Amino acid sequence: MQVYIVMGVSGVGKTTIGELLSEKINVPFYDADDFHPPENRKKMKEGIPLQDSDREEWLETLSNKISEWEKEDGAVLACSALKEKYRKHLQSIPKEEITWIFLHSEYETILDRMSSREDHYFKPELLKSQFETLEIPNYGFHVNVDASKEEVLDEIIWKLNKKEDAHMGLVGLGVMGKSLALNFASKGIDITVFNRHVEELEVDIAKKFAEENKLVYEFPWFDNLEKFVKSLERPRNIILMVNAGPAVDMVIESLLPFLDKDDLIIDGGNSHYKETVRREGLLKEKGIFFMGAGISGGEEGALKGPSIMPGGPKEAYDRAGKILERIAAKDRNGNPCCTHVGPDGAGHFVKMLHNGIEYGEMQLIAETYHFLRFGTNAAPQEIADLFEEWNKDMKSFLLEISVEILRKKENDGFIIDQILDAAKQKGTGGWSTNAALELGVPLDTITAAVLARNISGKKQDRVSAMKAYNRENKRTADLKEISDDLFKAYKAGSIINHAIGFDLLLEASKSYDWNLNLSEIARIWTNGCIIRSSFMEDLIDILKDKPSENVLMHSEIISLIKNSESALTGIVGQALKAGYPMPVLSSAANYLLSFTSGQSSANMIQAQRDFFGAHTYERTDKPRGEFFHTQWLDN
Amino acid sequence: MQVYIVMGVSGVGKTTIGELLSEKINVPFYDADDFHPPENRKKMKEGIPLQDSDREEWLETLSNKISEWEKEDGAVLACSALKEKYRKHLQSIPKEEITWIFLHSEYETILDRMSSREDHYFKPELLKSQFETLEIPNYGFHVNVDASKEEVLDEIIWKLNKKEDAHMGLVGLGVMGKSLALNFASKGIDITVFNRHVEELEVDIAKKFAEENKLVYEFPWFDNLEKFVKSLERPRNIILMVNAGPAVDMVIESLLPFLDKDDLIIDGGNSHYKETVRREGLLKEKGIFFMGAGISGGEEGALKGPSIMPGGPKEAYDRAGKILERIAAKDRNGNPCCTHVGPDGAGHFVKMLHNGIEYGEMQLIAETYHFLRFGTNAAPQEIADLFEEWNKDMKSFLLEISVEILRKKENDGFIIDQILDAAKQKGTGGWSTNAALELGVPLDTITAAVLARNISGKKQDRVSAMKAYNRENKRTADLKEISDDLFKAYKAGSIINHAIGFDLLLEASKSYDWNLNLSEIARIWTNGCIIRSSFMEDLIDILKDKPSENVLMHSEIISLIKNSESALTGIVGQALKAGYPMPVLSSAANYLLSFTSGQSSANMIQAQRDFFGAHTYERTDKPRGEFFHTQWLDN
Repeated sequence: MQVYIVMGVSGVGKTTIGELLSEKINVPFYDADDFHPPENRKKMKEGIPLQDSDREEWLETLSNKISEWEKEDGAVLACSALKEKYRKHLQSIPKEEITWIFLHSEYETILDRMSSREDHYFKPELLKSQFETLEIPNYGFHVNVDASKEEVLDEIIWKLNKKEDAHMGLVGLGVMGKSLALNFASKGIDITVFNRHVEELEVDIAKKFAEENKLVYEFPWFDNLEKFVKSLERPRNIILMVNAGPAVDMVIESLLPFLDKDDLIIDGGNSHYKETVRREGLLKEKGIFFMGAGISGGEEGALKGPSIMPGGPKEAYDRAGKILERIAAKDRNGNPCCTHVGPDGAGHFVKMLHNGIEYGEMQLIAETYHFLRFGTNAAPQEIADLFEEWNKDMKSFLLEISVEILRKKENDGFIIDQILDAAKQKGTGGWSTNAALELGVPLDTITAAVLARNISGKKQDRVSAMKAYNRENKRTADLKEISDDLFKAYKAGSIINHAIGFDLLLEASKSYDWNLNLSEIARIWTNGCIIRSSFMEDLIDILKDKPSENVLMHSEIISLIKNSESALTGIVGQALKAGYPMPVLSSAANYLLSFTSGQSSANMIQAQRDFFGAHTYERTDKPRGEFFHTQWLDN
Repeated sequence: MQVYIVMGVSGVGKTTIGELLSEKINVPFYDADDFHPPENRKKMKEGIPLQDSDREEWLETLSNKISEWEKEDGAVLACSALKEKYRKHLQSIPKEEITWIFLHSEYETILDRMSSREDHYFKPELLKSQFETLEIPNYGFHVNVDASKEEVLDEIIWKLNKKEDAHMGLVGLGVMGKSLALNFASKGIDITVFNRHVEELEVDIAKKFAEENKLVYEFPWFDNLEKFVKSLERPRNIILMVNAGPAVDMVIESLLPFLDKDDLIIDGGNSHYKETVRREGLLKEKGIFFMGAGISGGEEGALKGPSIMPGGPKEAYDRAGKILERIAAKDRNGNPCCTHVGPDGAGHFVKMLHNGIEYGEMQLIAETYHFLRFGTNAAPQEIADLFEEWNKDMKSFLLEISVEILRKKENDGFIIDQILDAAKQKGTGGWSTNAALELGVPLDTITAAVLARNISGKKQDRVSAMKAYNRENKRTADLKEISDDLFKAYKAGSIINHAIGFDLLLEASKSYDWNLNLSEIARIWTNGCIIRSSFMEDLIDILKDKPSENVLMHSEIISLIKNSESALTGIVGQALKAGYPMPVLSSAANYLLSFTSGQSSANMIQAQRDFFGAHTYERTDKPRGEFFHTQWLDN
């Protein structure tokens, strides 16, 4: 029977986790400390570190016990086993009969935990020496214990039950690729890495990555693509973490000669969804599966758990989806922030639009900050306090980091005041607008945010224009007087921005026949990604309730918006009058008013078009689909 | 020597034009009336119509004179020559020695003119019989005399001097193609027409077109492409008036086998400029010239003189540009509204952006109308009066037609109130935004106008939302009180919309190395096209003065805007507060404030991006191009 050795430094939780595991898999639990001879126990109680010579007898005892247990009912053994030579000593039975489970965390984390522990004869002072002694095994399962006990147990069980197809080859060890590789490895997925060799530019990237991490994980690595592919278990899973654009096609083309039927390529970059549709179709012809998976969360998300939006064939997701789910962030119910979004380009489309919403949310915060900073002359610290207050309600990641940003000092000043006010847009923001134009969707707030970056980029022109127009920003409002309305406006703006974004998803789903589950998309955006917030949590139910209606049509939202509307339009009017642009709040207000106007201004547009181009128009007193033309000048 | 016979009904101006022509080309002038025998003159004085028998002797005299003149110094002869048999009688010398110049106009026009004439023995009552007698020649030069004498003379001279290469083959007889073909023909350009044959859908289109017009012009016509191409003089000029998109490639591909080196294809449709770049490159390889020419002015413009924006090889424009200039509208100085815009896609880009500005101008009028109609409860007629007043200053074609639209009644009501308020956008409007996103240009007003069409299209959703939000449009402002500010806001909005559009042209010119002459582009937009206005006239000088600066940086504009700014922001605030969307005026206000803000809000954007994605930022206290990263959480 199998013997499971739960190892790691003192205080990491070997006993707790070991007992839970024993119960779960119904195998007897033993604590190695119980097998120490009395003289060792005495030393330990007195805080005297054991010497290797002290351990000889104890290890011998354990080694014998392990042989016995293996012949009987197996065992879960909690044992620090910090050095490789101790572990060798314990290996009294064939290698495959022992499963090493290495629990780990940071020194500070464990120290914190130990200071609240009682009733244990280990002295916290010894922790440092334990970390110094530790030789991390480059085999077995490595499990980070920062999560809850249940999650740690769940992870161990998953690793024990790991299917043979829980393996992945990763191409491209940039910042995101490296983080993702470590994430895969930490979750017990066999991960093989490849990075190309480019003379003087990319030399030994994969080799170095494997070496840097060899104490913790064993990464098979390659810089020869053929050998890399041939090393992978079949059917292969290969994730590309290369720059979106022609590089993706180049890599696919290089891979193709070595691939076999049913192999799977996952594009984890920010590719354009139309490219993904094209590539999926192309590879399908060759019997290769292709998925486009949007991954959000930046470097830290990639490492610790991103939100993942995979699109592609259902069959491919059924096979490899659980690997992606394994490394994804978890929602409030512990479910992975990863789901099969839909066919072909759906995953990349959804990721694109995620970023579109992000553009809107960022600009909302930026223009609110800007009005407060210059319109009310508030100090960054004051704005941070206000934003922190707002965020008790919003729980927005972007607002949270804005608080941190506004508080950050450098020498005597606030760093925000030193940052140049020129941004750029490229890729996903503008693509969202392009897609909206193609699908006929009014993507106002997101587009306004994208264009706001463009005008910010014209720094020199702006400074010249400021002089030519003899502008002076001066205090024009009182923070206390406007802050309630400003919050209402900000919140309404954020809701409208989300409503607009999800409207585009709805239209895309219809047009491309993707059958997107908007509620599920909101759910996988509640953690791991940049636009997580309490409103995103609300959207899960709102979109479940009325999946094919604009978010603004949900009754709770209607009350909320009606309550905020005059604050929204009032703040926009006040800011513009005072000389402060509010591009996204303005467009949110305009969208709201347009959306709730049964009668728009477009009858004039249609009349003009019919006048100069004989484009015809429909009438209010006739059914839709009947077109009329007027001889406007023949009176 | 050549004999020029200036013919047409009495009162059309044969003598006046004939004398001017005689002077210009230094050839003696004769008036056929002077050769009538005395009995004829008597009859004419008494208003008795001449019979054919009366004319015999006179025609014989003239016929002999023509033979004499031909042997001496040539002649310009003014002679009605209304019937083909009179003309045959006069043809006493070889065909090529007589040039027939047929002056023509409408009956009403000539009647008006004659009623102001004295000292002529022809009685106006006879005009009707003249028109009945007239058999229009299907040869010679047909010259419309509605223009000034100088222009008519200029046209005759051009036709006399016509180079051999003033010929054109036209493919595609849709509405625009037909109008353009008639325009070419009326300007003395040899025009051969082709329309494909599609069973049951497009049958005998070219043949019918030629037949319908055979009394006035002789159109060689074809529905066989090979015969069409082979019939054209070399080097060939072929203009495509087919739908933008794949049809253009199909036609080019079908033409190619029959073309020779140095032949020229002009695409007169609204093709995407990138397609034009691609096609130009492709055809250059084969030694074929390709030009993309934007044509604005709708059906009427195409017929009477559009604004034409040709882009492509300079060499091709040098050869064929004068043919396009010939059919273009004329600016206030009589110069053609057609110029060589720039290489490859420049012409189609400029046309695209023309339409982008048009989207903005139309929406500006529409939202202003909407606020007046519902916000002040003004009747269409009242709004028309106001707009008419505004247009004394603006002289905008779009505002002018809006006045007509608002006045147009149907039964008892105004037709504008019956037109459905749902518009769409496709093509050039959205393309302008796409181009701006690609080039990093803040195309705010144009984009807002495009998106406004999208939201107008959601008619059903808007009506549901209106009910859910319990909206009622009610009168909230007094027309008289707001009209001055509204005009200032409208005018400022229009200026900003133009500034934004021309900014995109500037950036495109730089990025694509097109060397666009913006002043020249403004000039060719002063007539023939949809966005002609007095401001466009002003832009000729503004853009000549500071070709590489934003229009908003011109001193006159600065004063004007500063004078209107508070009206602009005030009206936006007032309208939004009252519940009326103002998408383009809002975005104009936001653009203006952003453009004149030395300090934007984008330092917050940059900080956020550095926080979650380590994207780095530039600093105000360091030179541009140095990038910094902060460890935001390591305080």
